[in-house]
Amino acid sequence: MNRLLPLALSAICLMAPMAAATTPAAVVAQAPAAAWRPIAADELLVMTLEGGKRVVIQLAPGLSPRHVANIVNLAKAHWWDRTSINRVQDNYVAQWGDATEKKPMPPGLSPTSADDYGLPLANRRLAITPLPYADPYAPSTGYVAGWPVAMDGSAAWLPHCYGYVGVGRNLSPDAGTGAELYAVIGQAPRQLDRNIAVVGRVIEGMATLSSLPRGSGELGFYTPQEHPVPILTVRLASELPQAERPRFEMMDTGSQSFADYLRLRANRKDDFYERPAGGVDLCNAPVPVRAAP
Amino acid sequence: MNRLLPLALSAICLMAPMAAATTPAAVVAQAPAAAWRPIAADELLVMTLEGGKRVVIQLAPGLSPRHVANIVNLAKAHWWDRTSINRVQDNYVAQWGDATEKKPMPPGLSPTSADDYGLPLANRRLAITPLPYADPYAPSTGYVAGWPVAMDGSAAWLPHCYGYVGVGRNLSPDAGTGAELYAVIGQAPRQLDRNIAVVGRVIEGMATLSSLPRGSGELGFYTPQEHPVPILTVRLASELPQAERPRFEMMDTGSQSFADYLRLRANRKDDFYERPAGGVDLCNAPVPVRAAP
Repeated sequence: MNRLLPLALSAICLMAPMAAATTPAAVVAQAPAAAWRPIAADELLVMTLEGGKRVVIQLAPGLSPRHVANIVNLAKAHWWDRTSINRVQDNYVAQWGDATEKKPMPPGLSPTSADDYGLPLANRRLAITPLPYADPYAPSTGYVAGWPVAMDGSAAWLPHCYGYVGVGRNLSPDAGTGAELYAVIGQAPRQLDRNIAVVGRVIEGMATLSSLPRGSGELGFYTPQEHPVPILTVRLASELPQAERPRFEMMDTGSQSFADYLRLRANRKDDFYERPAGGVDLCNAPVPVRAAP
Repeated sequence: MNRLLPLALSAICLMAPMAAATTPAAVVAQAPAAAWRPIAADELLVMTLEGGKRVVIQLAPGLSPRHVANIVNLAKAHWWDRTSINRVQDNYVAQWGDATEKKPMPPGLSPTSADDYGLPLANRRLAITPLPYADPYAPSTGYVAGWPVAMDGSAAWLPHCYGYVGVGRNLSPDAGTGAELYAVIGQAPRQLDRNIAVVGRVIEGMATLSSLPRGSGELGFYTPQEHPVPILTVRLASELPQAERPRFEMMDTGSQSFADYLRLRANRKDDFYERPAGGVDLCNAPVPVRAAP
């Protein structure tokens, strides 16, 4: 029998790439190039913190057009340069902006309102990949053009998932300019959905935000004895020199690879998992993103 | 009209404590003493890290009896003294134990198996407070004796929520001794439910764990160039001198206060929230815990 081993092994090696992936990570690793979409450089916000640490945020102009337009405007004005991360509340958010609340706004920002918290579905044909599992916060959920969405009969909106970025505001009807931003660093605070605008997601450097010291002031704001984290610059990737631009791709949420990924996220059964759940939360099946190869 | 103001104000002051609370935080703040239950000192694990930072874990012997018995045994043997936090994976877990994997176990640990991942409901009368919202991972959810549970027709089990503590294991059918523990530091990885034993929750010091530097090795393990976080001691609170014992209370999950709290977690409508979700995730309605007054 031993003499057969080399042949058998080489046969296994030849077959291995064809074998069906049995984990979500394997699906992502084996997804063909056609399953990936480049992320446009003018939809990437590059934040550089003191010490040179980089955080990259992908914006969602298709789902949050007015707030994203304001954010692009603010980035082009270099408005966030020399601002800071001022609030880190455990299991909630890390939030940044102008601590003085007195920095003048650039011209041309659009007014926003509660109408900007979701995308009306009437008269639109969106290619939706449904997530066929119950959700405690919305009648249905799914994926549209690379983004998770929660939906009712009339609108789709971005959920507050881990790493997602939203726009701070004061009391309603204020919906925020986009100047005060936060990233979710804990259990998805979905109660904020449609009460605050979600505008994108952190796709690089999330651990930098989530591991910051928590603020000891009310709501996790840093106290005068603590130290806001200086933001050196925030730039659109499209405004950086070519050599400095980060390049990312996201999985096509209409692809077979993504369907396989969702199925396996909901049905873990491999050497480690014995009992598949048969379901997965919208915020626990994040759209795969990778550095462009 | 001005002359009426002082009277009107004092009338408001007299009435204020009677007014129905409109936020979950207000319900917790106003809950009567009868709505709280002391947490037994022999169900509290006190972990002291280098620098004196304290993490307190409440154990759940009622829901995870065999693993908790092992953990109590390990704590009484001072087994975790001079071990370390060896793994911090972003949006997943912080994990601690014996990095050498060679430290001898104390005698008397019970064997565990997949049968220890949940509590059979047959022949039991559990007072269950239902959470009447859809869950993507289980047919139903609720609260039992101060703990969130997911349920099917035959069993109840502790969910992997933020701050919850589980027992590391190797490949199944191994279910872990209880010596290797982790706390969830991100979006609830509910796919682990009934694949790993959950044994309790962090009730003090969670931010210490969640803000640790992430490990850069595979699965977030610290590499040789990084530094595991030394654990000085782990003790049951009941073994500490009276003056050093932490004292906590949890809300009675059968109380009216808890019912009010759940209703408001699912239906935020106040000066800030405009649009209530009408539902809440099991892991987003944590059982209130407080230092004993």
